[in-house]
Amino acid sequence: MPLNDLSAPYRRVRDWTLELCAALSVEDCCVQSMPDASPVKWHLAHTTWFFETFVLEPWERGFQPFNEAFRVLYNSYYNAVGDKHPRPERGLLTRPAFATVLAYRADVDRRLQGLLAEQRGGEALTALVTLGLHHEQQHQELILTDLKHLFSRNPLAPAYAARPPAAAAAPALNWHDFPGGVVMIGHQGSGFCYDNETPRHRVFLEPYRLASRLVTNGEFLQFIEAGGYREPVHWLAEGWDWRVAENRIHPLYWRRREDWQEFTLGGLVPLDRQRPLVHVSYYEADAYARWAEARLPTEAEWENAAAGVPIAGHFAGRRDFHPAVAAAGGISQLFGDAWEWTRSSYDPYPGFRAGAGAVGEYNGKFMVNQYVLRGGSCVTPDDHLRASYRNFFPATACWQFSGIRLARDAEPGGNG
Amino acid sequence: MPLNDLSAPYRRVRDWTLELCAALSVEDCCVQSMPDASPVKWHLAHTTWFFETFVLEPWERGFQPFNEAFRVLYNSYYNAVGDKHPRPERGLLTRPAFATVLAYRADVDRRLQGLLAEQRGGEALTALVTLGLHHEQQHQELILTDLKHLFSRNPLAPAYAARPPAAAAAPALNWHDFPGGVVMIGHQGSGFCYDNETPRHRVFLEPYRLASRLVTNGEFLQFIEAGGYREPVHWLAEGWDWRVAENRIHPLYWRRREDWQEFTLGGLVPLDRQRPLVHVSYYEADAYARWAEARLPTEAEWENAAAGVPIAGHFAGRRDFHPAVAAAGGISQLFGDAWEWTRSSYDPYPGFRAGAGAVGEYNGKFMVNQYVLRGGSCVTPDDHLRASYRNFFPATACWQFSGIRLARDAEPGGNG
Amino acid sequence: MPLNDLSAPYRRVRDWTLELCAALSVEDCCVQSMPDASPVKWHLAHTTWFFETFVLEPWERGFQPFNEAFRVLYNSYYNAVGDKHPRPERGLLTRPAFATVLAYRADVDRRLQGLLAEQRGGEALTALVTLGLHHEQQHQELILTDLKHLFSRNPLAPAYAARPPAAAAAPALNWHDFPGGVVMIGHQGSGFCYDNETPRHRVFLEPYRLASRLVTNGEFLQFIEAGGYREPVHWLAEGWDWRVAENRIHPLYWRRREDWQEFTLGGLVPLDRQRPLVHVSYYEADAYARWAEARLPTEAEWENAAAGVPIAGHFAGRRDFHPAVAAAGGISQLFGDAWEWTRSSYDPYPGFRAGAGAVGEYNGKFMVNQYVLRGGSCVTPDDHLRASYRNFFPATACWQFSGIRLARDAEPGGNG
Amino acid sequence: MPLNDLSAPYRRVRDWTLELCAALSVEDCCVQSMPDASPVKWHLAHTTWFFETFVLEPWERGFQPFNEAFRVLYNSYYNAVGDKHPRPERGLLTRPAFATVLAYRADVDRRLQGLLAEQRGGEALTALVTLGLHHEQQHQELILTDLKHLFSRNPLAPAYAARPPAAAAAPALNWHDFPGGVVMIGHQGSGFCYDNETPRHRVFLEPYRLASRLVTNGEFLQFIEAGGYREPVHWLAEGWDWRVAENRIHPLYWRRREDWQEFTLGGLVPLDRQRPLVHVSYYEADAYARWAEARLPTEAEWENAAAGVPIAGHFAGRRDFHPAVAAAGGISQLFGDAWEWTRSSYDPYPGFRAGAGAVGEYNGKFMVNQYVLRGGSCVTPDDHLRASYRNFFPATACWQFSGIRLARDAEPGGNG
Repeated sequence: MPLNDLSAPYRRVRDWTLELCAALSVEDCCVQSMPDASPVKWHLAHTTWFFETFVLEPWERGFQPFNEAFRVLYNSYYNAVGDKHPRPERGLLTRPAFATVLAYRADVDRRLQGLLAEQRGGEALTALVTLGLHHEQQHQELILTDLKHLFSRNPLAPAYAARPPAAAAAPALNWHDFPGGVVMIGHQGSGFCYDNETPRHRVFLEPYRLASRLVTNGEFLQFIEAGGYREPVHWLAEGWDWRVAENRIHPLYWRRREDWQEFTLGGLVPLDRQRPLVHVSYYEADAYARWAEARLPTEAEWENAAAGVPIAGHFAGRRDFHPAVAAAGGISQLFGDAWEWTRSSYDPYPGFRAGAGAVGEYNGKFMVNQYVLRGGSCVTPDDHLRASYRNFFPATACWQFSGIRLARDAEPGGNG
Repeated sequence: MPLNDLSAPYRRVRDWTLELCAALSVEDCCVQSMPDASPVKWHLAHTTWFFETFVLEPWERGFQPFNEAFRVLYNSYYNAVGDKHPRPERGLLTRPAFATVLAYRADVDRRLQGLLAEQRGGEALTALVTLGLHHEQQHQELILTDLKHLFSRNPLAPAYAARPPAAAAAPALNWHDFPGGVVMIGHQGSGFCYDNETPRHRVFLEPYRLASRLVTNGEFLQFIEAGGYREPVHWLAEGWDWRVAENRIHPLYWRRREDWQEFTLGGLVPLDRQRPLVHVSYYEADAYARWAEARLPTEAEWENAAAGVPIAGHFAGRRDFHPAVAAAGGISQLFGDAWEWTRSSYDPYPGFRAGAGAVGEYNGKFMVNQYVLRGGSCVTPDDHLRASYRNFFPATACWQFSGIRLARDAEPGGNG
Repeated sequence: MPLNDLSAPYRRVRDWTLELCAALSVEDCCVQSMPDASPVKWHLAHTTWFFETFVLEPWERGFQPFNEAFRVLYNSYYNAVGDKHPRPERGLLTRPAFATVLAYRADVDRRLQGLLAEQRGGEALTALVTLGLHHEQQHQELILTDLKHLFSRNPLAPAYAARPPAAAAAPALNWHDFPGGVVMIGHQGSGFCYDNETPRHRVFLEPYRLASRLVTNGEFLQFIEAGGYREPVHWLAEGWDWRVAENRIHPLYWRRREDWQEFTLGGLVPLDRQRPLVHVSYYEADAYARWAEARLPTEAEWENAAAGVPIAGHFAGRRDFHPAVAAAGGISQLFGDAWEWTRSSYDPYPGFRAGAGAVGEYNGKFMVNQYVLRGGSCVTPDDHLRASYRNFFPATACWQFSGIRLARDAEPGGNG
Repeated sequence: MPLNDLSAPYRRVRDWTLELCAALSVEDCCVQSMPDASPVKWHLAHTTWFFETFVLEPWERGFQPFNEAFRVLYNSYYNAVGDKHPRPERGLLTRPAFATVLAYRADVDRRLQGLLAEQRGGEALTALVTLGLHHEQQHQELILTDLKHLFSRNPLAPAYAARPPAAAAAPALNWHDFPGGVVMIGHQGSGFCYDNETPRHRVFLEPYRLASRLVTNGEFLQFIEAGGYREPVHWLAEGWDWRVAENRIHPLYWRRREDWQEFTLGGLVPLDRQRPLVHVSYYEADAYARWAEARLPTEAEWENAAAGVPIAGHFAGRRDFHPAVAAAGGISQLFGDAWEWTRSSYDPYPGFRAGAGAVGEYNGKFMVNQYVLRGGSCVTPDDHLRASYRNFFPATACWQFSGIRLARDAEPGGNG
């Protein structure tokens, strides 16, 4: 892609980040609610730091940093770049002020557009700007998940968006069969992908079945009412220990009053039994699946099923930031609505090589004790997903829009 | 005091709180840097809640709370009032907005002035409004100490006030003798005091000596250079364990670069060896005293020495928020500059009775595992102190302006 | 005392230590049930180390350590002696074997008796041997408290001694008045005492009253049944936090089955409502006292009341290791049965000087965040106590035989 | 296998357990050095509980438990059996005495041999006795690893076995190529296996290479000397955090004195640079591999290489309990010496079904956040291993005899 073709996408992605913050106060943007989450202001600055550090610094003539201190302050985890401000203390940075961070964004945007217009840097520059935009989209999603966590801890239950509208009934769950065999997974084609989606390679799959849609709140409520959170038999041993230590008796954002409620980005609302379940840990997803006489899919099974399916679904562009009821017919909700936990630990693909230099730290160093999630969610930017896209979180993570699609082994003698 | 005589003091105290915040951003006011510290916004709201709950609610006709939710949100620790928002989560409250808290203050101020003008409530009302003003003054001091802690954690080292000016040399330390015997301590007279200063009572003191001024940074530096932080022999066993666990090798806000620096409310400055040491724990104070062949005074020794001394000194009204070099002649710095650790644990006086109802929780329930500090500091409001005033903190606390005045037993055959 | 007069007392004290272990297995003696408690084998070795290090090493001609490694292994907390094996790991020392520790004891005993017979060392030696014997007696008590804790964690509830016999009814509680004034406390006379009991000095006491006996299990049960563990109003703030964090709803060794049971050194038995309460924390003692419209005594009040009272009571020599029902008439149970929490923090007396050298670490360095207990318990050796004796533990400690004697301010117009 | 054919194997396995304890004192057998490790006495009792609960209870006529309390006391993790004594408190059980546990073993052995002679129970009984014997063998290995950990924490560095003899030089490391493709893994044939080795199934492998032998201490020392523990670039992010938090700067049992030493079951010895490295975490194994421009193998790669290789190697039967230097020629040390970390997380095989009832808890519930190790070690019983055998531990585990075999992708254009 010619460099100046990136000018419009660059502006569009960067503008959407600011648009997501339009309804927020400066205070909302400053606070960190837990070590796993970052302040919105930090996301705004860090994504800018990414462009300044990995694009402007190597290619801009006479490069001068906007502020020397930001090199450390907004480095997330790149050891090759140098020191980093400690992650759990991101919320202590009342200075630089919000306005300063906006000025930082504007300055880097102006200089980066200048660089794109100049056409210096060639393919390497194109690749890094493109990576920076996908990186920014990931942080757009995190802005929403981190904000939801922050607001959930406020007894006033603030709303970020409009209340979710009434929803129709979910279609019955049925099963789709896949024959397996030696299949290819991993990124294909010339478009952008992260290094962790490569190389494309063969895997052998036994025949399997996937559920036609995500598990609903109503279905998960049956698990609860059947004693799901009281019976260790359903749980992985480590999952049960987690449940007991954290005293979990329902999903993260559910509340038990006279009836069940759910905290959403539209505020605290009655639990909608038809909508997909979100915000469960891997342990809860696994326990539910076992109770339902099913299992979680592997990431290869998921990708094999999703390959060729149009990447359309309920993404952040709809601006309701809450999963929607599944459509009837076929296999639905593969993209959007909720990230789907797979039973696959986040491992390198055969032949995987991390990129050289600091951006090589983007993915590879996290490949231990995390599980892969697939398909994007209702807070994922619309053009961000791919069938080969691998998201990953520790088994304890609940604050992402993580849900469940069930899988089963093919029935013997079936047509799977 | 006739009630409407409180109108002007009320306004003056409440205005000074806001004046302290004038130089701060909304972001600065929202964040909590550790569980012991509270956000400035929370201090602004909690002090208002105190007046609303303990004055308006019982005496205002047709009382309606400004916002029902604030009853829980801004209750600090009064179990008799009901639920409390958890202390470590005060910094998560990005809502109510800063502007809402200002409106809360204005509304309660207006209604309270109306009540004072009406003269309803009599002596009980006077007593509680007066208590509320002293309570607010305590939080004025905490606003400054908590803000200092927050800014100290920011790598940009923001300044809240002007840089401390150059200082003269401290006078030599000498010793003042006190004969002891049966002396009276505790609050005397009809002015305001907290319940923990009562009843006035007799104690027996052996003859003793007090140092003429506070320990300086330069003197404490000698302790460091003599290996004070490396030798357990100087320390209480628990103090040494604390030092090792926290890896303390100098006072909280000192920094070791090429030369020593100190973080102040005026920013990061070279360490001034002539000024009083501040921000040490009880353990550090006790270790220094032992190394210096002295000890900390008891609170009765201190109060006996301070009785009758004019309550003048370096308080917050000077607006430099940093301790000043001692004046020569006599016993100086008893009031202002730095809170002086005593070796007295914070216990009830003989015959102590906590007040009835919720305000009875003000002091008494903290009388365990804390140590008494005396004399006020450079961030204490000017008219807040008394010779009988008892401040108290756990032995680990360093973020208050806590310093050291040495004491010794009278020398045998001396005139003590 | 001429040195060889110590020969018989030395043998008697040392033998009683072994006698306490006669009913124990080698396994019982090896294990450590929590960092605060030590294995019996460690107590056997450490008390021997004390004599070897502080007596044999300076005075024995051609001194050779029994085993060079023991210098570190069995040093409890004397920094001046050098390195120490970490306290929480005392239970990992399966080697040296129990038999080796017995041989260590025998060897040091033989050499020490030789030294005593030789009469070398004079008064300094006498003082240190005497200190060593009192030190050993303290560890005799700890052997029993630590063992009780270990056995309490075993679901089999092993018994160390005979089951406590049936007990009579406790006499009614009444109050004894003391006039106060300037009184003397601290050790008097030429007998042995610890440095923390000195110097004898004057204190001023207001008139006060003491309860005639210890609080009974039955009385404490009333506190529980009245919601004592559910109402924060009775508790110190820090005490309530401790109660919630530890989920305490009754004293340490009580068990709730159909009826209340108590774990004793005689095994698990029905709770005897007539016997004194033991194994409460300072927080529980303080909360009970507040609920009972009383308070804990100060240590000076206690000592003033106990001065001149014969030191007789239910000590370890009775070999039932469980407190007995109070006798009627007068003020009883001052000595023995249960250590009595006082409201006095453990501070140095005016003019206190710790001894020189390593034994100066015996007491002084613990004088912070601990509370004084007085009077000895049913597991204290018979000839160990004095009216001036100061025991001390943190407010959280429950595994000692700690109980409650109530105090009150004198009633106005009374004869107090 | 006819039931009474199990009589001799049963006796042989059970006797070997006791033989392993012959050199230990009763004290050595009682103590627990960390929550992950259990006391030897507990292992002796738990393995006996397994036979009593899963074999005698269902099949013995007139079954009476040896001691009702043991049902809870010695249940490790079987929720279906009922309550369990908490794992971290296994070391507090000084009672039942060691002798009682021996009597428990003897009683169960006698009754079980009776049952085998009676031939009741048929195939189900055979299967469970066989499982019990393999279970006991796993605990034989744990007895040695747990004891090594205990002894390693003792400053006296006790030796359990003879000092390892002098060793020859390790052969040069070279690479063996494997073509990959669709291969079968999982248990094959009619012999015993654990459920986690089933079902046998197809996987697709890219061509790969395996190192001819385990990594040696000398090779790992080069990693250390090259700054391996100082440079985050070599480490997984979570591994680096672990390294920093635990302050690891060398493998668990290495000691740095003037020269390097290693704690072994034969005591503290000079580090032998020729022998295989043992006692590294997954993080250390992964970091070393990255530094060495290689990677860890997957479990499928390992099993494909090991299939058909005779199961011979340095196992516990040699009684030196320390890994030996590799033999020259071919691919060596696949079995014995050290468990080999694979990069495969411990997941269920496609189509995996856990057994019904309590024994279904044996493996499946641990399939999260653990990594597979292959090949057995120098403390694994001789006839315990299979090529399909899957051991598993969390990435942090170091106290097992875990080592490293390097793998690489086949070189392009190579013969792989």
